[in-house]
Amino acid sequence: MTNSIEKILIQRFTRKDIKSIDDIITREFPLTIIINDRELVTLLCSPTDFQYLAIGFLSSEGFIQSSDEIKKLIVDEQRGIIHIDITGNEKNNEETFKRFISSGCGKGASFYHAADIGYDRLKSNLTVSSSEIFSLVKEFQNRSQNYRATGGVHSAALCDTKSIIIFNEDIGRHNAVDKVFGQCLQEKIPTENHMIITSGRISSEIVLKVMKKNIPVLISKSAPTDLAVKLANDTGITLIGFVRGERMNVYSHDWRVKIAS
Amino acid sequence: MTNSIEKILIQRFTRKDIKSIDDIITREFPLTIIINDRELVTLLCSPTDFQYLAIGFLSSEGFIQSSDEIKKLIVDEQRGIIHIDITGNEKNNEETFKRFISSGCGKGASFYHAADIGYDRLKSNLTVSSSEIFSLVKEFQNRSQNYRATGGVHSAALCDTKSIIIFNEDIGRHNAVDKVFGQCLQEKIPTENHMIITSGRISSEIVLKVMKKNIPVLISKSAPTDLAVKLANDTGITLIGFVRGERMNVYSHDWRVKIAS
Repeated sequence: MTNSIEKILIQRFTRKDIKSIDDIITREFPLTIIINDRELVTLLCSPTDFQYLAIGFLSSEGFIQSSDEIKKLIVDEQRGIIHIDITGNEKNNEETFKRFISSGCGKGASFYHAADIGYDRLKSNLTVSSSEIFSLVKEFQNRSQNYRATGGVHSAALCDTKSIIIFNEDIGRHNAVDKVFGQCLQEKIPTENHMIITSGRISSEIVLKVMKKNIPVLISKSAPTDLAVKLANDTGITLIGFVRGERMNVYSHDWRVKIAS
Repeated sequence: MTNSIEKILIQRFTRKDIKSIDDIITREFPLTIIINDRELVTLLCSPTDFQYLAIGFLSSEGFIQSSDEIKKLIVDEQRGIIHIDITGNEKNNEETFKRFISSGCGKGASFYHAADIGYDRLKSNLTVSSSEIFSLVKEFQNRSQNYRATGGVHSAALCDTKSIIIFNEDIGRHNAVDKVFGQCLQEKIPTENHMIITSGRISSEIVLKVMKKNIPVLISKSAPTDLAVKLANDTGITLIGFVRGERMNVYSHDWRVKIAS
């Protein structure tokens, strides 16, 4: 587990002060599985036990039944690629291949350097105070009724610095955000210079989603990954995590967050 | 939000007694998006705001920039299908299509009836006591050190009724389970008649994964969805959720759980 976490410097905000502190953050790594010389999938994962992950994934998806079916397995940790040659029913494999051309496919690790994404850095001058964020997250939590009832749902909201504009819920972190964006699009509600609050942890995919909508501030009650922080830094997004009561961590572009005067 | 939750009867176990109680559970629904007459993706989602979800998804994935590009939108709530015709750059669409042939593709809602899965019902006679489960989950939590440090990681473990055999962690719920299965396969550790503990919520996909390994008991600290409970019922899996201290909910096949004599 030595390399699945990393130490970074963050800004811890309260209503009235800011402290620079060391924090431990979980790593997120894109692992591409190539099977019999064909790219199968890119999994966003913790960078440990790549071999177990690849074998387990192939087994769960019906490519192999036993480790005896693995003829060759080479892990390229540097580039995040695992090459596996397997025996087995080719017809079955062909069908499963079609099912697993995934969102990360064909991009691999290079997808996760901001320069390769092809979007301009966010230029919004929006600023927000720490007390505004604490109020918004409190309102956000009050509206998350479904979660309180069942414990199984994520919430997402679009807001300005004063109030929540659009709110939605879904069992999927990504779906909750997409429902908010869908309503914005349908009702012609602009997203630029606004903020997103999510109950879920922040992975690189959530940062990318928010960046494409030109949203400069992303707020979560949970933890971000190192890749999410890196992307937020590179693309100009203020990433805020662990908002709990009147404390929060700011991981990137903290100049947008002011403390009450 | 009326139909995103549902009331079911569950068994609440402590170390010494069992009560039948009504519980509220979150619903999980497969929504298939068909765009310009081609199947794009099946999203597992909460069954609300299908239209917002579909529009938001298409926008996030670069199919549309504005709602003006939507020529026609028909929601078939009964069958869980949304048909959308859009204008726009065909070349771009073609490329994105290739990326989104997903795991649910070509199956749609019918995939989620156990009879269509093509696996036999689990026949394991394994039983376990509530106090054994409380001890195992306590050990499981003690081992989840990465989560305690960063707040951003899921854990999974294979165990028998006495102790944890394989343990792993990952930022992805599915990856953590696949890492456990990968190690089992590589080290020829049998999964039949064993149990899985996971820190994450239980969706239908996790039940399917566990079922394919002939594992009769699935234990989580979090909530299951209605579809997960239905699949567990149909396939013979004992599904246990919300294990907190010395209380837990049993959602299916509770005959496998005994209270201490």
